[in-house]
Amino acid sequence: MNHNYIIPNEWSIIEKGFNKDQVTASESLFSIGNGYMGQRANFEETYSGETLQGSYIGGIYYPDKTRVGWWKNGYPEYFAKVLNAPNWIGIAIRINQQELDLNTCQISDFYRELNMREGWLKRSFKATFNNGNTIAVQSIRFLSLSHKEVGTIQYQITPLNFSGTLQITPYIDGGIVNQDSNYDESFWEVLDIQHTTNAAYLVSKTLKTNFYVCTGMQNKWYIDHKEIHPQKEVVLSEKRIDFQYTLDVAEGKTLSLVKYASVVQSMNHPKESLPNVARKVLHNAINIGFNTLLEQQKADWAAIWETADIIIEGDLKAQQAIRFNIFQLNQTYTGEDSRLNIGPKGFTGEKYGGSTYWDTEAYCIPFYLSTKDKDVARNLLIYRYNQLDKAIENAEKLGFTNGAALYPMVTMNGEESHNEWEITFEEIHRNGAMVYAIYNYVNYTKDYQYIADYGMEVMIGVARFWEQRATFSEYKQLYVILGVTGPNEYENNVNNNWYTNYLAKWCLQYTLEQLKQLEQKHPEAHQQIIQKTGLTADELKQWNKVAHKMYFPHNEELSIYIQQDGFLDKEIIPVIRLPKKDRPINQKWSWDRILRSCYIKQADVLQGIYFFENQFSPENIERHFDFYEPLTVHESSLSPCIHSILASKINKPEKAYEMYLRTARLDLDDYNNEVAEGCHITSMAGTWLAIVQGFGGMRNFDNILSFNPSIPKEWVSYSFKINYRGHTLQVFKSHHKTEINNLSDTPVSLLIDGKKKILSPHSLLAV
Amino acid sequence: MNHNYIIPNEWSIIEKGFNKDQVTASESLFSIGNGYMGQRANFEETYSGETLQGSYIGGIYYPDKTRVGWWKNGYPEYFAKVLNAPNWIGIAIRINQQELDLNTCQISDFYRELNMREGWLKRSFKATFNNGNTIAVQSIRFLSLSHKEVGTIQYQITPLNFSGTLQITPYIDGGIVNQDSNYDESFWEVLDIQHTTNAAYLVSKTLKTNFYVCTGMQNKWYIDHKEIHPQKEVVLSEKRIDFQYTLDVAEGKTLSLVKYASVVQSMNHPKESLPNVARKVLHNAINIGFNTLLEQQKADWAAIWETADIIIEGDLKAQQAIRFNIFQLNQTYTGEDSRLNIGPKGFTGEKYGGSTYWDTEAYCIPFYLSTKDKDVARNLLIYRYNQLDKAIENAEKLGFTNGAALYPMVTMNGEESHNEWEITFEEIHRNGAMVYAIYNYVNYTKDYQYIADYGMEVMIGVARFWEQRATFSEYKQLYVILGVTGPNEYENNVNNNWYTNYLAKWCLQYTLEQLKQLEQKHPEAHQQIIQKTGLTADELKQWNKVAHKMYFPHNEELSIYIQQDGFLDKEIIPVIRLPKKDRPINQKWSWDRILRSCYIKQADVLQGIYFFENQFSPENIERHFDFYEPLTVHESSLSPCIHSILASKINKPEKAYEMYLRTARLDLDDYNNEVAEGCHITSMAGTWLAIVQGFGGMRNFDNILSFNPSIPKEWVSYSFKINYRGHTLQVFKSHHKTEINNLSDTPVSLLIDGKKKILSPHSLLAV
Repeated sequence: MNHNYIIPNEWSIIEKGFNKDQVTASESLFSIGNGYMGQRANFEETYSGETLQGSYIGGIYYPDKTRVGWWKNGYPEYFAKVLNAPNWIGIAIRINQQELDLNTCQISDFYRELNMREGWLKRSFKATFNNGNTIAVQSIRFLSLSHKEVGTIQYQITPLNFSGTLQITPYIDGGIVNQDSNYDESFWEVLDIQHTTNAAYLVSKTLKTNFYVCTGMQNKWYIDHKEIHPQKEVVLSEKRIDFQYTLDVAEGKTLSLVKYASVVQSMNHPKESLPNVARKVLHNAINIGFNTLLEQQKADWAAIWETADIIIEGDLKAQQAIRFNIFQLNQTYTGEDSRLNIGPKGFTGEKYGGSTYWDTEAYCIPFYLSTKDKDVARNLLIYRYNQLDKAIENAEKLGFTNGAALYPMVTMNGEESHNEWEITFEEIHRNGAMVYAIYNYVNYTKDYQYIADYGMEVMIGVARFWEQRATFSEYKQLYVILGVTGPNEYENNVNNNWYTNYLAKWCLQYTLEQLKQLEQKHPEAHQQIIQKTGLTADELKQWNKVAHKMYFPHNEELSIYIQQDGFLDKEIIPVIRLPKKDRPINQKWSWDRILRSCYIKQADVLQGIYFFENQFSPENIERHFDFYEPLTVHESSLSPCIHSILASKINKPEKAYEMYLRTARLDLDDYNNEVAEGCHITSMAGTWLAIVQGFGGMRNFDNILSFNPSIPKEWVSYSFKINYRGHTLQVFKSHHKTEINNLSDTPVSLLIDGKKKILSPHSLLAV
Repeated sequence: MNHNYIIPNEWSIIEKGFNKDQVTASESLFSIGNGYMGQRANFEETYSGETLQGSYIGGIYYPDKTRVGWWKNGYPEYFAKVLNAPNWIGIAIRINQQELDLNTCQISDFYRELNMREGWLKRSFKATFNNGNTIAVQSIRFLSLSHKEVGTIQYQITPLNFSGTLQITPYIDGGIVNQDSNYDESFWEVLDIQHTTNAAYLVSKTLKTNFYVCTGMQNKWYIDHKEIHPQKEVVLSEKRIDFQYTLDVAEGKTLSLVKYASVVQSMNHPKESLPNVARKVLHNAINIGFNTLLEQQKADWAAIWETADIIIEGDLKAQQAIRFNIFQLNQTYTGEDSRLNIGPKGFTGEKYGGSTYWDTEAYCIPFYLSTKDKDVARNLLIYRYNQLDKAIENAEKLGFTNGAALYPMVTMNGEESHNEWEITFEEIHRNGAMVYAIYNYVNYTKDYQYIADYGMEVMIGVARFWEQRATFSEYKQLYVILGVTGPNEYENNVNNNWYTNYLAKWCLQYTLEQLKQLEQKHPEAHQQIIQKTGLTADELKQWNKVAHKMYFPHNEELSIYIQQDGFLDKEIIPVIRLPKKDRPINQKWSWDRILRSCYIKQADVLQGIYFFENQFSPENIERHFDFYEPLTVHESSLSPCIHSILASKINKPEKAYEMYLRTARLDLDDYNNEVAEGCHITSMAGTWLAIVQGFGGMRNFDNILSFNPSIPKEWVSYSFKINYRGHTLQVFKSHHKTEINNLSDTPVSLLIDGKKKILSPHSLLAV
């Protein structure tokens, strides 16, 4: 398969020519979303070839019954799955009794464009039927950012060499399935189908979770832009409603259908009112009209790009890639709703069904912190706060007590949704990321109130977990943490993973510090929290003891921290000496061979050094980088970005650029031959980090924002903007200069290349 | 549920009174088998209550598609499963239109007996129907040892308070299922159903594996012992044939049906000839007749008991238990067929579907070695020899080369049938058990020819595996074995499991030694093997190096070997201090909690010390026992026996007896509330070992058999017999004396209580 078919363009993702082998990959790459819902780039018309149908609504899931070979105590009974929701895009086309199906017709001039600047998807092609009839087709669709419950499609057909009768059938279909269902169950029940003169409504409900969704459609018809009012026939089946229109269209005339859809659901409206709400949403959209909706869409995306854009000169593919990543992140999460989060595949696929991983805290929050209002990142934190009770329940299932909280590895509603013991039970470092994200947020925004209102309770739950999870080794006379899996999932059930131990110690200390601060700054809140959590002085003493007596595996001779106990017993052979036929090892090697090899899936010790970079000297960082990076296979999409950032830091520009390339076009060039299943949404934030924190050198230690920009020799220049405590700053870097532009109305202090500068309002600093 | 309902009896397993809750447990406990096939104690008549139907034919399996939550490279695609085979026992009974069903009739005087001395199962009861009709029923059935393809049932009905019409329908049913099917598939296809005037034959075939089975039946009828010839109606359905007989029986008369069944299959006969063979087998059985077959059965079992029996005086429950264990082992494997082996549940259940575990090599072979002709143990070794190619393939799948062999954890046909990575890929100590069994066999029998003919090839494959599996640690300057699971499966993916390292070193050294011996004693065989295996001098050098530089975790202060790297970092709290509510931990604790605890599932370091006891001083053994036993929860049925033997060795009689009790009546008293799924057949050999090697102190080091008998204070005396190099020896031990009786025609040298004695033929030595 051609993994490199996307045409470079600075603002659009473009595909030319129809290739059946690319259909599922393009369905992922050309996905659209508006935070509320998303839609893979499935064809509107019937397609009998290979396809992964996907219409997703944020927050709507199903607890699919867990299926494992060998049950382990503690496994969750269910796996919350993102659901394929009722199909609102469908338009079946028959011309002279022949179905328009790109799998069977002859297709030419196929063109597809996802316009990222303006937020719409266009597709055009010519199709020739067996009888020689040829039509030109163009469809444009988008999910409105202003009217999130609205999707619209403009679908145009022009008979090129005949005049004839077209049967065109827009429909809503509730008979949809998930491909990854464990027991081939249906997840939806269709409750009601209503239709009026012009509109149709399908009410469905998820089984077990009882989410109600009403999907409405209404259609407008035009010939050469002149509205017409064709007759229709209504075809009703158990789970689907078709509006069947039969129209005569003359050669060269363009028939245009605008299908308006509304998708409303019971998380936002009383379930009884859904058809009514769907009707109102639909009417409103029709009143606004397709063209005005599209204009609004362009304006809304322009506003997003105003702060989020990164401009790269001199490298068109890099430009396209970074915008693709920023675009997808903004399509996936828009930040108003703290019940939603960022699934690893966003709205582009159903894999990794559960919505939330530690990816959100470790990678996505910094992106949203810098490119959005602080409330967006705050809502992501609130999501976890709201799930604290479930995290405490989760810890209780594993034998912890006294309000210790263990956040799940994968979750939709706060309950654990994963079932590999070495991950579910042992990859506990995720719990530290919850506290790190709070620290990150407060450090960046100075919104200390968050800790008083929400953060402290989470921190106490997590600290209690670490205290109980550490074991005092009589042998070492230190606290050890046994039986864990670090970020490097190519090691399972190890003892004293350095990253985990370091994060645990830091969590305990940070929580103790913040408790003290809280007592001083917000004594009432402090008192309330102490009361609510039943925190005792003895506990604090014990936290302090565990933090101070934490064990860290270290090798004197190499002067580095060791990834975990026993790591140096392994045969240490750099990745560069691995035969190509053995790569990627997760496809070529058996699991035990991977486990006993020295190869690292993704940053582990280096992830910790990245998080706490200010606690390590550059030489120390370099020593660790030089030891671990050569052993790292980067078989997680979250790996290269961290290495790129650290390589920039320790002045290894070539390594930084090499790592940047591996992260930036991961999906567009489909490195791992898996984009058909969906895009790697959360790792896209890592690409942004690799530019802003990597090349741009942005840091936020010691209460001052700093930049230390460098530029890859392959680029002419780059620039990005960030929000920082109410200021908008623009950083421009070329080989000749660095410019920092304070676009806001107040002065801001910064460290530029290590020197403190004060930028006046609306002033530009060039160095 | 009552776990203690089996009535103590020295030769029989007896149940009195009908309790629906006990049905599935009794189905396991009262199972019958003859090595060729087996049958759970399912009722002949219809039973609408809870039941696990099980008719099993040795060697017939189905590769059920593996079902796991998360696939790991290297997992086998299929899991070979023991199959529930066509039902030959079924007899449906209707009296005046009412079905005889113990779940709906009123039952009294229910009595069930498994006579172990004679090898038959009897059941009798009275059943009262809704209309008040009462019948007395008695059935006797057995699977013939002399005619292994034959099963017979004598089924008697006596109307007690009425005269009436009985509709009695013996049938064969091929429409059977496995309860543990992964995809609810049917594993059998019924190909043909034939019937003649008197007999019926059902030919079926397993899907995928294409085993053909023909099941035949023919029935004889008697009233008060006088043969009658009732008319029948044949009812044919797609997968079943019924012979429906309608008979008038007067009050007080006994109607007797003898159902003869033949079960023949394509492992032993050409598949085309199966109906013909089934017919011949059936005719032969009928010609011999039920009573004579039963007399033969008694004689055959008498011969087995002649060498295998253990007599315990003064403890009826212990007597019953040890006979039950010996009986079940003899029902499961009789030793003629090297294609068969000993499944953990034998013919008593379908769980742990694959047939062969390392249990065979570590526990069962010593039992068969001492109680049977040496060919029986030899056939068990040949089984593995015949699967060497598959073991080499299996190792190749995991990345090993050059003829390295890794025997599967669970297998039926030589292919791996298990799919937990920490077991399948990592519990590699099993590979050492293959060589240990060869050593054990040769050491006991002096059949050195076995090594020349078969053993050496297996040893070379295994040695190659260990050499490749060991890693040279630059750090330790020694060879380590990383990422393993030891016999203690409550530790996963550990480094340097002492038992595994020790066994690996021993395998390498033993193979080197035996290669030298072979070169001297059988130079031609040696030459042939070198040629066949391509063994080089460099390899031998490397084996020697790995063996000599093997690392063993050890603690100086405690002066013990450490179970694995890092074990002493754990919180060491003896089992005795575990709250009762937490036991068994495998039901009460999450898996990660078990893993990071110090608790040991079954002997691990002690298993190694048991295998190589002559390499450790008694003080050293005691030190290890005192450290590890208190941390052992014995949640494997294979654990207490090893501890009992070692406790006897180091003169801890109370501990030895405590451990003996936990192994002996595991199933009869259903300690783990799981006997309904089947009996723990392989661990039954451990009970035998606990008496013969434990209390009896039998050892076979330095080419001389030794005994060092002791006796639990709870017993009056015990005695057992063993075969040893053509001698039959009987050991009797009471509190007053030890007697060794040489029952054979040649003298034998023994060590008794450490003193060398020569026993003349047919002489008794009392000490």
